[in-house]
Amino acid sequence: MRINHLSIAALLCGCSITLAPLAFAQAPANDPSEWRTLDPQNTLYMELEAGRVTIELAPQFAPNHVDNIRKLVRANYFDGQRINRVQDNFVAQWGDPMVAKPMKDAKRTLPAEFTRPAKGLNFTVLPDPDTYAPQVGFVDGFPAGRESESGSAWALHCYGMIGVGRENSADSGGGAELYAVIGHAPRQLDRNITVVGRVVRGMSLLSSLPRGDGSMGFYQRRDQHTVIRSVRLAADLPEAEREPLEALRTDSKRFATQTESKRNNRDEWYKVPAGHLDVCNVPLTVRKKS
Amino acid sequence: MRINHLSIAALLCGCSITLAPLAFAQAPANDPSEWRTLDPQNTLYMELEAGRVTIELAPQFAPNHVDNIRKLVRANYFDGQRINRVQDNFVAQWGDPMVAKPMKDAKRTLPAEFTRPAKGLNFTVLPDPDTYAPQVGFVDGFPAGRESESGSAWALHCYGMIGVGRENSADSGGGAELYAVIGHAPRQLDRNITVVGRVVRGMSLLSSLPRGDGSMGFYQRRDQHTVIRSVRLAADLPEAEREPLEALRTDSKRFATQTESKRNNRDEWYKVPAGHLDVCNVPLTVRKKS
Repeated sequence: MRINHLSIAALLCGCSITLAPLAFAQAPANDPSEWRTLDPQNTLYMELEAGRVTIELAPQFAPNHVDNIRKLVRANYFDGQRINRVQDNFVAQWGDPMVAKPMKDAKRTLPAEFTRPAKGLNFTVLPDPDTYAPQVGFVDGFPAGRESESGSAWALHCYGMIGVGRENSADSGGGAELYAVIGHAPRQLDRNITVVGRVVRGMSLLSSLPRGDGSMGFYQRRDQHTVIRSVRLAADLPEAEREPLEALRTDSKRFATQTESKRNNRDEWYKVPAGHLDVCNVPLTVRKKS
Repeated sequence: MRINHLSIAALLCGCSITLAPLAFAQAPANDPSEWRTLDPQNTLYMELEAGRVTIELAPQFAPNHVDNIRKLVRANYFDGQRINRVQDNFVAQWGDPMVAKPMKDAKRTLPAEFTRPAKGLNFTVLPDPDTYAPQVGFVDGFPAGRESESGSAWALHCYGMIGVGRENSADSGGGAELYAVIGHAPRQLDRNITVVGRVVRGMSLLSSLPRGDGSMGFYQRRDQHTVIRSVRLAADLPEAEREPLEALRTDSKRFATQTESKRNNRDEWYKVPAGHLDVCNVPLTVRKKS
């Protein structure tokens, strides 16, 4: 059976053949300029017993929260904290501002960073219609929306995106409580939450956690929590200990080609190419540097 | 802190208070005519060691496949089969047509039922724009799309929807291999797969399974599979053993009210109502009959 690797994620068949690594088998020759090394200043390693969750921070969208999260990490604030909520088709959430843990020079709360001016962002437009935003696309590897009327832009709540838990007040979050989207994109949260980054590796360590049996997916017993061993900023580790990761630039030709292949799958399996592509269905490729 | 139960699924806070059952606390008085009892002829119980996954079949969209799945169930075809693939942010898949198991009077393959005539369906339109389909809405509790040009309609690949695995040929599936969507809706599969139903209870038993470590989420070792103890049609069980479930009618006023609340969250938590609603973000409520 012929397998088109660009559309392989959609293949639903009984074949359990072990295939070559997915994303690049039929892609054009490698051009190093189309990849960017993850900035260690914007890369977090969250260590769980089951493995590492690697997060890319998005200071483009939330500079103050990202700065505050770096301070929390340097205060070892997250070490020993817990994933205390996993709500099916919604979020996995960790950190708890009610736990009295020293934050050193980090702040408990910050003014919201729900949106920012669109001006100054390297925004690659996706031509497809979107249910929620006037225009969608990508900024430096993050799915984003923008609106010409207000001139504002914001990061989108796609799968794997990370936001800042808050109470009713817009300014009641600070980054001490975070969540990752583990289900269908809850886009109603866009512009209502400060979005600070994206899980770039290890997402399944969060998405496959047992769902909380309490209301809103909170676990009812503390022994159900997943303990966070530590969270570290890559820049704070010796270079040899950093994960050598690179991301496909979302303003590259390769990304555009890959996106179009997904929009209009043309292989033997697809009978009707979709013709359109949801911004949250666009693959954002991160790989180990060779 | 005030909690609006209609928007509670979106609340991201540190509160671990145990709240009252979610969906109906502030809804208008109960009108029994707005609910429909699940038809036992269209209800499957898939029993796993961890519990039951309840599936509502959609003969409206795939009459021949649903009929064939009933025959497979009555042949005990699925008993002892396995969930052999769990691909993160995509699908959990079970059944394997390569396993030589008697199918009795069921067929191994059937002509595709990717779409059907829109005429004759009780289609409740969702007014929101959609990336993939000219028009979206609901038919008897299932998210659906339709197109006036071809006059066709189809069930959508939202979270929890169940489709029929196939090979490259459109007519190569029959229902012996099924999958449930466990991530962001892979709508590019719409009109390329026969959709046969939806998980109405026990979804987290599938979505929280460990992801397969092989290509496309297939497990590399058979001992990683989740065994299916049995699949039964509710109609084949004595009435006392059937789960008394009822679904909110998607053509009811209550459903419209609930949908509008989600589209324009107006409570103390939301600062910017979305104003729009993705068809796959519309809650489809199923509850135990009281």
